[in-house]
Amino acid sequence: MTKEFRTLADPDTVRETIADLDLGGRVEQVDLRDARGRVLAERIDAAIDVPGFDRAAMDGYAVQAGDTVGADEVEPVVLNLAGTVHAGAEPDVTVDPGSCVEVSTGAVMPPGANAVVVVERTDEIEADDGDTAGDTAIEIRTAVAPSENVMLAGADIAAGARALGPGTRLTPRELGLLSALGVDEVPVRARPRVGIISTGDELVPPGDSLNSERGEIHDVNTTTIAAGVDAAGGEPVVYPHAGDDFEAMENLLRQAADECDLVVSSGSTSASAVDVIYRVIEERGELLLHGVAVKPGKPMLVGRIDHPDGDSETATGAGDAAARSAYIGLPGYPVSALTIFRVFVAPAIRAAAGQPAPTTATVDGELIAQQRHDEGRLRLLSVALIEDADGETLVYPVDKGSGATTSLVDADGVVAIDADTDYLAAGESVTVQLFDPDVRPPTLLAVGEADPALAELLDSLDRPRFLPVGSREGLRRLREGIPDLAVVAGPTDRAVDAVDIGGWSREWGLLVPDGNPDSVDGLGDLIDGDLPFVNRNRESGLRAGFDAELDALADARGVDHRDLTAAIDGYEATVSGVESPARRVADERAAVGLGLRATADRHDLGFVSVGTQSVRLLGNPDRGGKPAIDAVRDAVETLPAACSSLAGYQFE
Amino acid sequence: MTKEFRTLADPDTVRETIADLDLGGRVEQVDLRDARGRVLAERIDAAIDVPGFDRAAMDGYAVQAGDTVGADEVEPVVLNLAGTVHAGAEPDVTVDPGSCVEVSTGAVMPPGANAVVVVERTDEIEADDGDTAGDTAIEIRTAVAPSENVMLAGADIAAGARALGPGTRLTPRELGLLSALGVDEVPVRARPRVGIISTGDELVPPGDSLNSERGEIHDVNTTTIAAGVDAAGGEPVVYPHAGDDFEAMENLLRQAADECDLVVSSGSTSASAVDVIYRVIEERGELLLHGVAVKPGKPMLVGRIDHPDGDSETATGAGDAAARSAYIGLPGYPVSALTIFRVFVAPAIRAAAGQPAPTTATVDGELIAQQRHDEGRLRLLSVALIEDADGETLVYPVDKGSGATTSLVDADGVVAIDADTDYLAAGESVTVQLFDPDVRPPTLLAVGEADPALAELLDSLDRPRFLPVGSREGLRRLREGIPDLAVVAGPTDRAVDAVDIGGWSREWGLLVPDGNPDSVDGLGDLIDGDLPFVNRNRESGLRAGFDAELDALADARGVDHRDLTAAIDGYEATVSGVESPARRVADERAAVGLGLRATADRHDLGFVSVGTQSVRLLGNPDRGGKPAIDAVRDAVETLPAACSSLAGYQFE
Repeated sequence: MTKEFRTLADPDTVRETIADLDLGGRVEQVDLRDARGRVLAERIDAAIDVPGFDRAAMDGYAVQAGDTVGADEVEPVVLNLAGTVHAGAEPDVTVDPGSCVEVSTGAVMPPGANAVVVVERTDEIEADDGDTAGDTAIEIRTAVAPSENVMLAGADIAAGARALGPGTRLTPRELGLLSALGVDEVPVRARPRVGIISTGDELVPPGDSLNSERGEIHDVNTTTIAAGVDAAGGEPVVYPHAGDDFEAMENLLRQAADECDLVVSSGSTSASAVDVIYRVIEERGELLLHGVAVKPGKPMLVGRIDHPDGDSETATGAGDAAARSAYIGLPGYPVSALTIFRVFVAPAIRAAAGQPAPTTATVDGELIAQQRHDEGRLRLLSVALIEDADGETLVYPVDKGSGATTSLVDADGVVAIDADTDYLAAGESVTVQLFDPDVRPPTLLAVGEADPALAELLDSLDRPRFLPVGSREGLRRLREGIPDLAVVAGPTDRAVDAVDIGGWSREWGLLVPDGNPDSVDGLGDLIDGDLPFVNRNRESGLRAGFDAELDALADARGVDHRDLTAAIDGYEATVSGVESPARRVADERAAVGLGLRATADRHDLGFVSVGTQSVRLLGNPDRGGKPAIDAVRDAVETLPAACSSLAGYQFE
Repeated sequence: MTKEFRTLADPDTVRETIADLDLGGRVEQVDLRDARGRVLAERIDAAIDVPGFDRAAMDGYAVQAGDTVGADEVEPVVLNLAGTVHAGAEPDVTVDPGSCVEVSTGAVMPPGANAVVVVERTDEIEADDGDTAGDTAIEIRTAVAPSENVMLAGADIAAGARALGPGTRLTPRELGLLSALGVDEVPVRARPRVGIISTGDELVPPGDSLNSERGEIHDVNTTTIAAGVDAAGGEPVVYPHAGDDFEAMENLLRQAADECDLVVSSGSTSASAVDVIYRVIEERGELLLHGVAVKPGKPMLVGRIDHPDGDSETATGAGDAAARSAYIGLPGYPVSALTIFRVFVAPAIRAAAGQPAPTTATVDGELIAQQRHDEGRLRLLSVALIEDADGETLVYPVDKGSGATTSLVDADGVVAIDADTDYLAAGESVTVQLFDPDVRPPTLLAVGEADPALAELLDSLDRPRFLPVGSREGLRRLREGIPDLAVVAGPTDRAVDAVDIGGWSREWGLLVPDGNPDSVDGLGDLIDGDLPFVNRNRESGLRAGFDAELDALADARGVDHRDLTAAIDGYEATVSGVESPARRVADERAAVGLGLRATADRHDLGFVSVGTQSVRLLGNPDRGGKPAIDAVRDAVETLPAACSSLAGYQFE
């Protein structure tokens, strides 16, 4: 029976409920070559002595230590050379009193010998003993103690000794010790099998083409959750996408539950998906939680799906312990799904795999923009990192709306804000839970006007982050002190305290189909003709340039700016990408678009020049000491060469 | 021609020479599912708008924003419901003035609509319009602006925009963005192929049996270097071990050079190996360095092997750039080989793969034992880490001799000591280059007497490190203040300032073959009989107990201790493992061994009891606050249950 959950579960309850789920805990044998990063399930004791024999630790001569008593540089002892033993060979000679045997490092100590004199303290001479004339003798110029320069059998590790404990994570060095012990297969914690199901009729796998008229979008969560499962030490099992078809989804869910330790679905907030999940859980398991007091992620589900009776031997090869599968339903939006996965699910997968939490999972930093909070539930606030001039970590909120996939890369992690905290002040120290232990702050945060030459410049930098928010918004953020750099094009409304790092100019105008079929000659044709136009968004510098020209034209015609814009078919039809107008003209969705000569070239469109505008890189005055700013200065110098194919560009 | 290298190269020259080697730099296309951790070779621009359509960002009603002007809770606006659009469906309805359409999150905005009113601000009512009686109408209780709750096409990322730059490391979040863009295959930096060759007749792969009479040992370097190559972003190619056979080794080296970007051999310090390498390099390449002023690692080789003429299209699939292979020869001892690999070779592999250095590659700590240095060359000192009671990292040198494979796990990294530094004082702050970015300090450092019950105790702790140095050496190190805990058994010569954490007692005596064929009754039979005996090493508490009993016997007999020990055949034949005497008795290499009742049981041997001795866990008084000490206390409580099968043990 489906339970009713009248109140949202608090996050600690969610963590405990998930921690109590059974996610496998099996043991498997793996080849040593495949064991890197795995976790030992059992203690490994040495089965053999290492070394397995008394071993010469230096190149030199094996001797009876007693024969060397009193030997020194002044009064060396002379021993007859009885033979040689190399590493990897069985000694065929014995060291009797008064004799020695040449040995190389790693050789088996010949019978009778109990010490080695290093070769540097010896000299080869001709034996002067009458009986052995012509034979070689060795002058020993130092005394050695018993066992000196010898590694006794078992001295490295003795057979029976505890070598590695259960729970040891296998890095190259542990693998090396296991190799020395002759171990070529090790018992490790099995990776919990995690079935991944994305639901929603609108989802299409990456690589397949989209029907945008039907509102199709590419499936993101299968990729991110599978990679997250892998990173947490689990084995992702990706199931085909089933759409919202009731029966297909039910079959898929049952199959995944039978084959995996944990089933994670996302987008399961749609009514039909929840219906299926409820039905399967009702028939075969238990719903443990529905709804969590966390933003984002409120609609999270946690449950358990038992395997059919008499089928306790499942595809996982496990017995009773795995006769049920855990189920977790994640929200559908990519950032929400990955956040909830990372905070609540990944720790449980790591625990089942025996993997420790990564040491780099969190980073502390100073919040540089205040954050109000009136949710009454835990908020996992998406934030991004940037370093100040001293290398200290600064943290700023990223809120592009939870549907934005670019937040995946524009944010670096989340800050947890308690339900009863209602305000985080700028300057406060916060702990960021990173989306991935490999996340590092970008070396440079630039915001503002997107531009083809800027893209080249960014390509030459190491780990830059650029947010294409447009010139106007870029300036606003620079005023707030958040970015290192604002990229500003065209006329701007007011000045901001900044350091000019460099820049270039670009030619802009009207993009028309190749051959200019409507014979567009300038802005006047837009107003006086009846041509479908596609404009840029208000924040862009290109739009600012366009509006300034329209103002000039309005003045010249003695009319109001609004009269002109009202006459343009599509003045309000704005798009945010540099290339978007060009693409619409190329697709014949518009007759004229606002854009750059370089973009027209790239898309083989006609171009009607209107003007040139400067693009300036304005540096945050507080970040002048950052090495990345110098790197930008250097990169600007290389732009004339890197951008030689960009039409309409002038570099300084 | 083979060059002569009269002086050792300095470490910076080595780094530069290796950095100048050509290790590939190819680009390959990989499936997105296999791309985690790889590095983008090229910039990825968005090929499509995301979303590809104007998209409802909330569940609610699509409206013409103008229709909602003035709507609020007091004076709602009523709009006729014209239909519904779900996510993944093509709208079959238009929003005309005065009407609205129900939309779910993700749905395509129906034609005519330009905003969404969230469902929470609406109510469904019956239409009161005469013409549409019985139809549904929607009460709108808020005004919305154009584009409110709508994500416009391309607003997430616009077609043509720079999405990810070259050099970006692909973590789950970047893979998510690529999925959103429909990308299912990405151009990444190819992993440089690194051929791994271990040389030496004495080496046997793990898993194969050893002939100890021939001095065979297991090959460790192939495992550690292959794992290290993998960790650095390279593709290890393991070649079969060729022994010191001249022709076989030459063929192997040529094959590896033809197939790989880099060939790494270890153990190449043996004269025959160096001969082969010289010959191949002389014929086909260039020796760049031979001998490096670093300890360990002096015999390192760096060179280049050209591919045969006309064979520039090699198995690597590369052209001219890969028409030569780099060669690096590492020392043979495992710790030396891994140290040199990590410090000099791994950075070059990472650079070729485009991988950044791990953020956790180094850790700073306080040296707690002084270190003299008079090498005149760079010393890479093996060290281990331990935390003090405040969680601060302490560093102590580990010097077990470079042949010891246990140093791989007993040390955590190296401290580089310059050639012109001759002394590091205790208390000095040092930077440790970790053997692996996953290395973490153990939670507990225990040293002293190995014991079967102790092994159980260690198994129950998280990341303990135990060094089985014996009771006597354990006490000495505790006096020096290095370990958290010393494990001490039997009589000790002097007291040390310590905190008693707990302990147990164990029964010890003489191990004899099953059935006690020589009818051994006690120590007297050892002295008076002619039985080959195997003793424990002087540092062990078991030996101390044995010697104390011999003293008592000597007193009783009125003879000197030495007279008794001289009469024991094998008194000086000591072994260091707890189980070593038992194994020798079981192998019939000795008739009597010194050991525990529990060990006799385990090996199905006869046992002649001599006494019981206490085993104490002595805590370092400065480390009382460490959580691991409390964990040890707790673990001691569980020992009676965990060790119920250990014969002869008494717990408190």
